[in-house]
Amino acid sequence: MTNKAKGSDKFAIINELARRRGFFWQSYEIYGGVGGFATYGPLGSKLKQNIEKKLRDLFVNRLGILEIESPIIAPSKVFEASGHVNHFKEPMVECLKCKKRFRADHLLQETGKISVWEIEKMSLKELKAAIEKHKIKCPECGSAFGEPKRFLTMFKTMIGPYSKAIGYGRPEAAQGIFVEFKRLYQIAREKLPFGVLQIGHALRNEISPRQGLIRLREFTIMDLEFFFDPEEPNCFLLKDIKKEKLRLLLSEDKLKGLEKITEVSVEEALSKGYIKAEWQAVFMVFAKRILVELGVPEKKQRFIEKLPWERAHYAIQSFDQEVFVERWGWVEVSGHAYRTDYDLKRHMEFSGEDMRVYKELENPREKEKLTIRPVMAKLGPDFKSEAAKVSEMITKANPEELERSLNKKGFYMLGKYKIVPEHVEILRQKILERGKHFIPHVVEPSFGSDRLVYVTLEYAYRIKEDRALLSFPRDVAPIQLGVYPLVNKDGLPEKALEVHKMLVEEGFRVEYDDSGSIGRRYARSDEVGIPLGITVDYESLKNDTVTIRDRDSWKQVRSQIKELPDLLNKFFQWKINFEDLGIPFDN
Amino acid sequence: MTNKAKGSDKFAIINELARRRGFFWQSYEIYGGVGGFATYGPLGSKLKQNIEKKLRDLFVNRLGILEIESPIIAPSKVFEASGHVNHFKEPMVECLKCKKRFRADHLLQETGKISVWEIEKMSLKELKAAIEKHKIKCPECGSAFGEPKRFLTMFKTMIGPYSKAIGYGRPEAAQGIFVEFKRLYQIAREKLPFGVLQIGHALRNEISPRQGLIRLREFTIMDLEFFFDPEEPNCFLLKDIKKEKLRLLLSEDKLKGLEKITEVSVEEALSKGYIKAEWQAVFMVFAKRILVELGVPEKKQRFIEKLPWERAHYAIQSFDQEVFVERWGWVEVSGHAYRTDYDLKRHMEFSGEDMRVYKELENPREKEKLTIRPVMAKLGPDFKSEAAKVSEMITKANPEELERSLNKKGFYMLGKYKIVPEHVEILRQKILERGKHFIPHVVEPSFGSDRLVYVTLEYAYRIKEDRALLSFPRDVAPIQLGVYPLVNKDGLPEKALEVHKMLVEEGFRVEYDDSGSIGRRYARSDEVGIPLGITVDYESLKNDTVTIRDRDSWKQVRSQIKELPDLLNKFFQWKINFEDLGIPFDN
Repeated sequence: MTNKAKGSDKFAIINELARRRGFFWQSYEIYGGVGGFATYGPLGSKLKQNIEKKLRDLFVNRLGILEIESPIIAPSKVFEASGHVNHFKEPMVECLKCKKRFRADHLLQETGKISVWEIEKMSLKELKAAIEKHKIKCPECGSAFGEPKRFLTMFKTMIGPYSKAIGYGRPEAAQGIFVEFKRLYQIAREKLPFGVLQIGHALRNEISPRQGLIRLREFTIMDLEFFFDPEEPNCFLLKDIKKEKLRLLLSEDKLKGLEKITEVSVEEALSKGYIKAEWQAVFMVFAKRILVELGVPEKKQRFIEKLPWERAHYAIQSFDQEVFVERWGWVEVSGHAYRTDYDLKRHMEFSGEDMRVYKELENPREKEKLTIRPVMAKLGPDFKSEAAKVSEMITKANPEELERSLNKKGFYMLGKYKIVPEHVEILRQKILERGKHFIPHVVEPSFGSDRLVYVTLEYAYRIKEDRALLSFPRDVAPIQLGVYPLVNKDGLPEKALEVHKMLVEEGFRVEYDDSGSIGRRYARSDEVGIPLGITVDYESLKNDTVTIRDRDSWKQVRSQIKELPDLLNKFFQWKINFEDLGIPFDN
Repeated sequence: MTNKAKGSDKFAIINELARRRGFFWQSYEIYGGVGGFATYGPLGSKLKQNIEKKLRDLFVNRLGILEIESPIIAPSKVFEASGHVNHFKEPMVECLKCKKRFRADHLLQETGKISVWEIEKMSLKELKAAIEKHKIKCPECGSAFGEPKRFLTMFKTMIGPYSKAIGYGRPEAAQGIFVEFKRLYQIAREKLPFGVLQIGHALRNEISPRQGLIRLREFTIMDLEFFFDPEEPNCFLLKDIKKEKLRLLLSEDKLKGLEKITEVSVEEALSKGYIKAEWQAVFMVFAKRILVELGVPEKKQRFIEKLPWERAHYAIQSFDQEVFVERWGWVEVSGHAYRTDYDLKRHMEFSGEDMRVYKELENPREKEKLTIRPVMAKLGPDFKSEAAKVSEMITKANPEELERSLNKKGFYMLGKYKIVPEHVEILRQKILERGKHFIPHVVEPSFGSDRLVYVTLEYAYRIKEDRALLSFPRDVAPIQLGVYPLVNKDGLPEKALEVHKMLVEEGFRVEYDDSGSIGRRYARSDEVGIPLGITVDYESLKNDTVTIRDRDSWKQVRSQIKELPDLLNKFFQWKINFEDLGIPFDN
């Protein structure tokens, strides 16, 4: 991570432009601002929507992945099951004098003397020792720190009027998918594989966020959970993309302290075991392509493998897709985790609901079948009015797990109910097994909308003849067209307003601008990245034509007004290029 | 409010269909469900997106209203300023025996013996007396209630690692707009009027929500804040819609106990003073049209005026747009509040930032100008290191208000800083006033996405030949097209998949279905409201045509495959009708 002078680098420039032109800014400025919260203005919210639409178009419309929308607030139980209540913590130190609090790991990273992956492995004791060794003091007042602690970085609240009903703001959209798996599987007509996408706000109560859109307390996440049968892990899309290259930074090289990129084809990455699941490799390719389409060249992207202690608690393999940005170096824009059956299994344990799916076996085989029967005579006295419910839950529970737990621990927890051996009768029968129950595996690509917005802006930014322009890919530009009367008289504004109205009704996002010289208006529109400018001039009044100006080359062509809708639709669908829009025109 | 048998009415039917086909269901079912939270499945989330897009198309694309996206979590200060911390409360009673808690006003409403507007006026004492008079007992266990209390229905949390940094989940998206007014005004090129829209999740910690999508703890709100100069309140859109009728239920009639509809044109409503602001009347017309376009006839809509004590604390006039639904009677789908300068003024007071705008006067006039100068010699000792900041804040404060407060109270609160007379010097000069500062007024139309989803479903629902179908307006239908091979052999599936792929690439939302008889597939598609079904039959193989089936009439036409994209685009843009899609075809 490099720390350049803050006034001059691209991060500073983009943030200044974003604030001034209304892409985004820190929220609640009138109250001094609150770290980790950003507000998107009209241009930024449209840019963000367009980026999200890009993922929807690919995943939902083309690949048939299901999209859902679930709440941001969830009851505590959900995040106890998912492991977040125990694991979603960050090491924190408090200054003994000014009482300001900081991420202990970030302070150590900033010394630059220990690698990120070494820090992630440290216990609280080791963190304390490292802070003392490197003589790290409070960045605000220079005093010493107290003992490091782990801070739960979820926002906590109460649901309803009872103080015991704890709820959390979701730190990921994924759990909203896992808890509804049974219903989603039914909607997917009980066939694997299938995927579910959720795009929505998520909350992480960061200790001291200071990196603009890169580290927010409230952000938009795009989580895609892809469910498949671990015995049939093959991806039917692989054949079309197996030759495509991926740039990997493997954990074995990281451990050696090397920042070495291994560039391999997808089939090589799979055959050499660099990537464990076919579907994961395929989603990594899609992620790479999406970033290329947002303007980030392949060379400025890499997939970095997480070391075992760096991975989230639910993953057996993880890659972060990183993009190089000027101020912060390599920054994660998407994560690709192989979550196995971890989440569904945990929700099955915590809820007592069967999250398994059933498949028929090609070759039926004889097998011993285990059945657990509730013994009402015993459940009744122990569970009273809830006995019927507990009995029902017992019949739904996984018999193997229940038996194993009874043998090992002497009891089994069904949600909050403690089942002991006398509550059940265990039966074994020989049966011809025609099918089996199993928990699907999951690979998850997860994108951060806000970071995609930021990298799209940084990579769109260029200087031409001393002027700033945002060279957005045409399908994500917030405004598609500017319409301008050459001068503000002689009927030109009226004609231009007609053209504007016609284009709005055709569904384009169009801005009308008649203030200042035409040169100033072009400059203004370049700075917010409007791909095409349509100017009504004196000739327009004679022959119903307009000029169309290209944001990037500043070239112009002349076209018939009545042909605009068709031409422009084709242009924004990437079917034709600027040169195809009309006859070259010199100003 | 009518309470029909729950098993048979439309609310029950819609909820059952919604759960079964994946429109929406109560969230967290595996953990027993949590009241007031809903998850949208693939069909529901798309339906909701399409409804939201309808508002965006009208307000943002056509009317040029700015859209923003701000966080859901805000620091306490924002809702102290907005008045929510003091006012956003509901009366609650707790059962003395089972400790369950209920909305006191809802319990009284359910007796049906007191009107809603009488209940809203009641003090806690009066609520208690009414509960005793009507002998209302706990609906769960039949016991008596304790003292009514007011419960703050905002979700509370902490921002960051400090326990004093209280934050709330926003109960409306509006405050995210008001707090950013200065920046938004600048983006609007410092011209009034202009509007700002925000669509996003909002949170209300309801005491005991029990009405599905009608009353959620987490919901999607679409708040539009329209800022105008109260001295120039005229709406330039009025001329086009002044003859349009509105169905009003006026407060004067409500007070008389009449449910009388006053049907008047917009110009009449304004001239008679029924509606106070032109912009408000115009947005009410747009709201009515949107509901008509979602399938709710005008006769099933009304605008009910809120009585002074029913209105939110910020409004001087409010109408609720209500739609009649079978189970719940008249249900609010949008609110239209004239918020005046209330919110901006409050944020100005609480933040110390000037939220006024400036306008030039047509006739400059001589005026006494008040200037407040900070006296550093006094500020220094009192505010120490913060003196410079306080001095800066004094120069930005509204001088009239500061002087008034000093005269009246002997001090003025600038945020957390207490300013006393010796801190400032007050100067008066005669100046030629060329312009003036003022706080814009605001009218707010505010729509509930989830309720719009519900009423769209209820009004789309019909029975034809004993089968349920959802007759969605074609532009909001979650899936636009079904593609079906007539039978699963002889190359028909291959051909149908080709057609499917072509339509997906053209950007349509298309479902492919080859399971079961064609009749069953049509029935399934009608039940989820797919407007058109495209069937590949044996003739398709000969002459590259398909049949197109209309969901509502079950009629069919035959068309060329290659003409489909153009025809279907026109159909979904309402440019042509079903009959124009091809040659009538009898099955």
